[in-house]
Amino acid sequence: MTELLLYCAARAQIVSEVIVPALQQGTTVLCDRFYDSTIAYQGYGLRMDQAMVRRLCRLATQGLTPDMTFLFDVPVRTGLRRAGRTDRIEARSLRYHERVRKGFRMLAKEAPRRFIVIDGTRSIEDVRTHVVEHVCHALGK
Amino acid sequence: MTELLLYCAARAQIVSEVIVPALQQGTTVLCDRFYDSTIAYQGYGLRMDQAMVRRLCRLATQGLTPDMTFLFDVPVRTGLRRAGRTDRIEARSLRYHERVRKGFRMLAKEAPRRFIVIDGTRSIEDVRTHVVEHVCHALGK
Repeated sequence: MTELLLYCAARAQIVSEVIVPALQQGTTVLCDRFYDSTIAYQGYGLRMDQAMVRRLCRLATQGLTPDMTFLFDVPVRTGLRRAGRTDRIEARSLRYHERVRKGFRMLAKEAPRRFIVIDGTRSIEDVRTHVVEHVCHALGK
Repeated sequence: MTELLLYCAARAQIVSEVIVPALQQGTTVLCDRFYDSTIAYQGYGLRMDQAMVRRLCRLATQGLTPDMTFLFDVPVRTGLRRAGRTDRIEARSLRYHERVRKGFRMLAKEAPRRFIVIDGTRSIEDVRTHVVEHVCHALGK
């Protein structure tokens, strides 16, 4: 619960201090992680009450929803190997990380118009091309 | 919102790491501040949604309620003068602190069996005697 509340506090601050002012100026905002990560890591991963986690995320982010979300999906072992270092969260069990991955994929299924799931085992160049195409299309370019 | 979530995170941690284990061992736990302070400072003081603040407090404290709560009530100017130093919260306007004081007094009215309101302008010796009487009575001593 402490971890969940701390992530929500961090999101509340970045939303009100950085993201909302940028959006008001018409800027396109790109975030590495947003509330989906909280739902996946704390909600699915730690098996916390889904409704409660989602309610907290909405409060923290003022109900703000991304227009487009990229999910770079890789098998758990691949992801952990790529991360290299092991922080407090990465050190959790493989089962935990499997739940997190499943959580992300469920979120993508729930919001198929917003989510773009990319096979992260493909080459960096392939992944990049895929992302650029989607972003250009979304920006009408 | 960030401030509220950070206080709730702090309470969630102390409740699960310190307070609940102590209670399970039969220890009497004495806290300087608990969720009433969050309701008074962030709820009343910052005029945040009352129901939302209370819901968050309950989540953070696992629904734990003190058996007895002492409110040392003094006029705002007296309180600020006694505090001496001025931290980020103390530096807020007098109106803010008036709302906080009113909030604490409302909370005491809501839960008259739990709250003991003590006139904090009395001498230290008087205040001490008052507290000791109530605590001894509660502990059956």
